[in-house]
Amino acid sequence: MKKVLLATTMLVAGASVAAADVTLSGDARMGLSNGFVTAPGALDPTGFTSRARVLFTMSGESDSGLSFGASFRAHDAAGAANGTKGSVFIQGAFGKLSMGDVDGAANAAVGHVDGVGLTGLGDLNESVFIANGGLDLGGAVTGDPSALYEYSFGTVTVYASVTQPTFDYTQPIALTLSGSALAVLPGRYQGDAYGLGAKYTIDSYTVSIGYERLELGRLVPAAPAASVKADHWIIGGDATFGDFTVKARYGKADVSVNNAAALDFEQASLSGTYKMDALSVTLFASDAQFTTPAGANAAEVRAIGLGASYDLGGGASVVGGIVDRTTQAGAAAKQSDTAFDLGVSLKF
Amino acid sequence: MKKVLLATTMLVAGASVAAADVTLSGDARMGLSNGFVTAPGALDPTGFTSRARVLFTMSGESDSGLSFGASFRAHDAAGAANGTKGSVFIQGAFGKLSMGDVDGAANAAVGHVDGVGLTGLGDLNESVFIANGGLDLGGAVTGDPSALYEYSFGTVTVYASVTQPTFDYTQPIALTLSGSALAVLPGRYQGDAYGLGAKYTIDSYTVSIGYERLELGRLVPAAPAASVKADHWIIGGDATFGDFTVKARYGKADVSVNNAAALDFEQASLSGTYKMDALSVTLFASDAQFTTPAGANAAEVRAIGLGASYDLGGGASVVGGIVDRTTQAGAAAKQSDTAFDLGVSLKF
Amino acid sequence: MKKVLLATTMLVAGASVAAADVTLSGDARMGLSNGFVTAPGALDPTGFTSRARVLFTMSGESDSGLSFGASFRAHDAAGAANGTKGSVFIQGAFGKLSMGDVDGAANAAVGHVDGVGLTGLGDLNESVFIANGGLDLGGAVTGDPSALYEYSFGTVTVYASVTQPTFDYTQPIALTLSGSALAVLPGRYQGDAYGLGAKYTIDSYTVSIGYERLELGRLVPAAPAASVKADHWIIGGDATFGDFTVKARYGKADVSVNNAAALDFEQASLSGTYKMDALSVTLFASDAQFTTPAGANAAEVRAIGLGASYDLGGGASVVGGIVDRTTQAGAAAKQSDTAFDLGVSLKF
Repeated sequence: MKKVLLATTMLVAGASVAAADVTLSGDARMGLSNGFVTAPGALDPTGFTSRARVLFTMSGESDSGLSFGASFRAHDAAGAANGTKGSVFIQGAFGKLSMGDVDGAANAAVGHVDGVGLTGLGDLNESVFIANGGLDLGGAVTGDPSALYEYSFGTVTVYASVTQPTFDYTQPIALTLSGSALAVLPGRYQGDAYGLGAKYTIDSYTVSIGYERLELGRLVPAAPAASVKADHWIIGGDATFGDFTVKARYGKADVSVNNAAALDFEQASLSGTYKMDALSVTLFASDAQFTTPAGANAAEVRAIGLGASYDLGGGASVVGGIVDRTTQAGAAAKQSDTAFDLGVSLKF
Repeated sequence: MKKVLLATTMLVAGASVAAADVTLSGDARMGLSNGFVTAPGALDPTGFTSRARVLFTMSGESDSGLSFGASFRAHDAAGAANGTKGSVFIQGAFGKLSMGDVDGAANAAVGHVDGVGLTGLGDLNESVFIANGGLDLGGAVTGDPSALYEYSFGTVTVYASVTQPTFDYTQPIALTLSGSALAVLPGRYQGDAYGLGAKYTIDSYTVSIGYERLELGRLVPAAPAASVKADHWIIGGDATFGDFTVKARYGKADVSVNNAAALDFEQASLSGTYKMDALSVTLFASDAQFTTPAGANAAEVRAIGLGASYDLGGGASVVGGIVDRTTQAGAAAKQSDTAFDLGVSLKF
Repeated sequence: MKKVLLATTMLVAGASVAAADVTLSGDARMGLSNGFVTAPGALDPTGFTSRARVLFTMSGESDSGLSFGASFRAHDAAGAANGTKGSVFIQGAFGKLSMGDVDGAANAAVGHVDGVGLTGLGDLNESVFIANGGLDLGGAVTGDPSALYEYSFGTVTVYASVTQPTFDYTQPIALTLSGSALAVLPGRYQGDAYGLGAKYTIDSYTVSIGYERLELGRLVPAAPAASVKADHWIIGGDATFGDFTVKARYGKADVSVNNAAALDFEQASLSGTYKMDALSVTLFASDAQFTTPAGANAAEVRAIGLGASYDLGGGASVVGGIVDRTTQAGAAAKQSDTAFDLGVSLKF
């Protein structure tokens, strides 16, 4: 009773139909992994890792040529039904407008340097962003559906985004960086984050810039008035020289509480990826740090990673990586740990 | 790796195969919405709304020509696996028997007047029903899988339904109407609701009638014996005059506790929809009220809504609506609020 | 907007493409059922049963001819995304390696005698296994993703498996058999189970054997050291004589706590299935018992079941069954109960 999906409708059903369609694709992986320990002294065992996922992609076209669509993963179906997972878009001469669990504009424009490993190994190559990207003080003080607008003219793409304006964050805000708690702001806050970004590509070079701003006002108690604000600038550059691609990102942010400087943030990352036939090797380094207004360390995470991927064809690759992470909370002793994984990555 | 589904198997694989198949369809929407406030004085902000959903539809035919099938949405997969979401059916000369999260017979026969808006704006156009439809004293005192039987002869369709007989409602019953609590019945109840309905269509006119009865007995404590019963009659009429369709519904119910009249219920709704090429405009009004046996107001919800939809072709529409709602709990002051939305609705 | 999937890509898109694909299949059922009472004296009502499920099957092939794939049900999507539901595999000349919610090796090799009923009626025909199969002291002391390796040479298939080595069981262990609590081991344990199995098929005869071992060490408190271990041997035999198939399974296990014998376990089951055209009739009997080292009964479950299935063609069957179950906890009085069901089973 199993059926194989057809590669294209057009060959059979005839072209020129502005058909709306739902298609399936998938990915899976299996292998061994050793993660970062969650606490000093905790067990650090090596175990199995596996997963399988399906992606629904819906697409259509209106009579006037407006493209529209939506996509979400099967395991995100419940979130997609309320706008907090997956995304929906319409696209035309005016650009592309997306809504749902979309990236903020700075994230969409600048993004990340290359990462390593079958499982991502903590995704420590990734830049952090305010709008649903990690700099939002714990990851949940802004909400979806967010909106992202993109417009391309020639080699330039510009982006603008805003998170759900009605999102009501019902818990005290915990300022954290990779698990290190920096401060807790009691009360209940509401607000949103907006972002702007631009990306310019010429030949094999890309430069990008993004700006984001978060503004939260305390809802309960309303008096005395309290606010949390954050600004973030980030720039990026990619360059490809033959088989070698290098990427760099640098960002600076500051967080203020009740309009007084509370924390500064700085992040930098660099990656180099070398492709040779079926083999791809990536090395990256990253550093993200919160400092107090006096310049003392509040929390820092440094990482260096090395990984490789070998394409077996047909959608299968052998992928592995190793990442060394060093964390420091305030003036406490630095903690180092290594994570690694190896296995097969499958695309369907 | 993405594949487009084929519009029909028959063109390629040849006809005359009694194939059992699984197909995909989907819907999505994105826009702005302003909902009803959840409490007097609460924030009433306008924000983003978006969602994306996928529907699985399974169908087959037995050697003797019996049709069978099932369907559920991706985000209802867990409920569909235990019979509380989606539905399963078999259909033949005997009629159609469905099981799962099916409508009660009165709901299936009479249904609702037309609604407005991208998001439904509270679905205040909808009639309430006993069997999984709102009159079941909070919405959860009966359970699924329910069973619905339909049989059509000529222009008449008859319906019969019953909710899960073994459903055990483990909480005190809260009598509510649109959030207004009317009474709480302590203890733990078990029971079911059954329904009957009929629909007669001639030319562009449809009349419909439905009856439902709920019977709950107290399980814990068993003594002294306690019961909750409700009866509901509802009638409907639809008429289409050229591009204009008018629909009306009227229903009356009474709820008894321990065989003594506890609450009366009355509901009426009316809608008019005018279609002109790609444009469709709908206006509706509805009123639902619980009264005490003495005739005093227990809770009332009135609504009036206006909406429009413009078909862009290919499955896309621009849809918007506005609904004004007035609620009154007992002799308290009336509360009014307006909700509105606007965006694109997409079908795949 | 609904689409029927194409039976095969090859007819249209051309052969010789090592395509990676995602396909859909499904199953559903609806009918009446009367389950086992959950407690003596509880209600034992007959009600509706229905469900609908969709299965995603992904498959691909590497350039060198390595097969790979993954599968999971729609309602298991969240678990499949973290390796605890569904499974992923790669297969080549070296055999087949699967990971995820896979059976232990003994289960894969020996498995179960035939069962009855639309809903399984408690699946009391099923043998219990250590590795994710019931003998794991409550069903959750080992974790997924597990790994299963299979290799076939001629008529022999061998199996080896191990559960997630890093799985950390965070609760006290409750030794139970079909709901009867035998003992509770306080603390927090970590460990895994491994298994070996082999199956030999010649003509219409199959013999199989499996061995499993569970080893758990107490994590908290670490001192004094505490351990839970279990060994399980199981053998099976299937034979088909024309339209009649008989299956038998017999297994013995012992559980030790801190290296002292704690419980012995013995299970035996037998089934006979007779197929005549569209009709299939199955009778089974099973007995599973925990005894103390002194030989006294700790908990026993006996069952006898009778069922029939009539194939309507096209994927539909009428299926029904009845199972009588007798349970005894220690020296307490025996409890008997009967469960039955009847309905249609649908494959898509």
